Amino acid sequence: MIAAGIDIGSTATKAVVFDGEVRGVAVVPTGWEPREAGLTALRQALAAGGVKEGRLGRVVGTGYGRISLPIFDRKVTEITCHARGAHHLNSETRTVIDIGGQDSKVIALDAAGGVADFIMNDKCAAGTGRFLQIMAGILDTTLDGLGELAASAQPAPLSSMCTVFAESETIGLLAQGVPKGAIAAGILDSIARRVQGLAGRLPITGVVTFTGGTARNRAICQAIAQRLGVSLHVPKEPQLVGALGAALIGRDV
Amino acid sequence: MIAAGIDIGSTATKAVVFDGEVRGVAVVPTGWEPREAGLTALRQALAAGGVKEGRLGRVVGTGYGRISLPIFDRKVTEITCHARGAHHLNSETRTVIDIGGQDSKVIALDAAGGVADFIMNDKCAAGTGRFLQIMAGILDTTLDGLGELAASAQPAPLSSMCTVFAESETIGLLAQGVPKGAIAAGILDSIARRVQGLAGRLPITGVVTFTGGTARNRAICQAIAQRLGVSLHVPKEPQLVGALGAALIGRDV
Ligand code: SF4
Repeated sequence: MIAAGIDIGSTATKAVVFDGEVRGVAVVPTGWEPREAGLTALRQALAAGGVKEGRLGRVVGTGYGRISLPIFDRKVTEITCHARGAHHLNSETRTVIDIGGQDSKVIALDAAGGVADFIMNDKCAAGTGRFLQIMAGILDTTLDGLGELAASAQPAPLSSMCTVFAESETIGLLAQGVPKGAIAAGILDSIARRVQGLAGRLPITGVVTFTGGTARNRAICQAIAQRLGVSLHVPKEPQLVGALGAALIGRDV
Repeated sequence: MIAAGIDIGSTATKAVVFDGEVRGVAVVPTGWEPREAGLTALRQALAAGGVKEGRLGRVVGTGYGRISLPIFDRKVTEITCHARGAHHLNSETRTVIDIGGQDSKVIALDAAGGVADFIMNDKCAAGTGRFLQIMAGILDTTLDGLGELAASAQPAPLSSMCTVFAESETIGLLAQGVPKGAIAAGILDSIARRVQGLAGRLPITGVVTFTGGTARNRAICQAIAQRLGVSLHVPKEPQLVGALGAALIGRDV
């Protein structure tokens, strides 16, 4: 049976078509129309896999925008989908760290890939993709640029955890002539400390898999690994893990 | 004896010269030079009161910038100074609510105007003057304009407490054509809920005095009074209460 998973996040919408292996994938910006984004991503993933819509068995939706799409056979939380997807990619995974556009989560998994426990922050922009996006903007760069700037720099201390206060603090550091590299490294360390704060409330065991588009950034992976004192497993396409998990759940049902 | 109190806040620096009654006051922007601002405010307050610098007995500093000024005979926290100033203006005061540029506090007073307990938020921009300033900016208005817009409007629900997320939410509401008045009222209700959250951790008794420059805004006073279910005592110049308290402490010593 061919199943699809669609993960409608605040920033990007991801689709995975799966029939025992991954057939096709797609990533599109969510924009203001999560419904449209979901349908577009699904169509693109089907086309990429050369799969006709009529052959699709089941569609499972996840992500904050899942409520807006009526085509789903089932809707499942991101927590469950990230756990399932990460466990599929590495069955030793017992911890998942996910940094989304507007939230961050740490998930403890059981040996079967089920959710044993989780901590989620979706109330405060600190520690989320939004924080990184705003900070990159202040340094007049992108998320990737932030990583490049930070490479091998000593982090400048950024004392404010709050995104708003960190913004002013960063502007102050720039005005004082602190090098951008040091500031960028300070920003990455700040998000790592925030993840550490979340992770500290769960046991960190087994393989720690880092999911979500942010995980593509090597410098952020390094900063988090350093703070947690563990090495991170980063899947090849970390932003697809939630959609993959949703597709796997679609195959099960 | 003539005493002066200088309150160097994140936004404004206030000075009060006192000799049994208020002789002279001054308010200047703090800007990037808290030290300069403190000296300027003191000079202006002395000039306003026609008091020669040589006749000044004691100078007490308060506010986050107090560390930067070497002329102080004593430095005292804002908490103590706001309590003292509010108690002087209304001796029935048992609770002080202060919204500063970068923090907010609720203080419980004993009958003598001393601090019995307090709750302070200076880690999160939500519930501070910064939140109001950012939100006013999105509505293309000022703090006063926010109050005027909000007058007698039904508040639009603003679900995000986080300043960053509330910003996006507000932009979304504007895009949906929600009237600015309703959004402004929603913003004021949001800060009132945040103050309510702080105040809920202390007993609210006696006269509740609202201090800090934000208290000059009638609409914010109303929103907070409504949420707390109490009436608020707002001094004539609420932004001077901390500096007044500092001057009173200077007279005591
Ligand atoms: S600390 Fe800053 S980023 Fe976090 S909720 Fe408060 S305003 Fe938002």
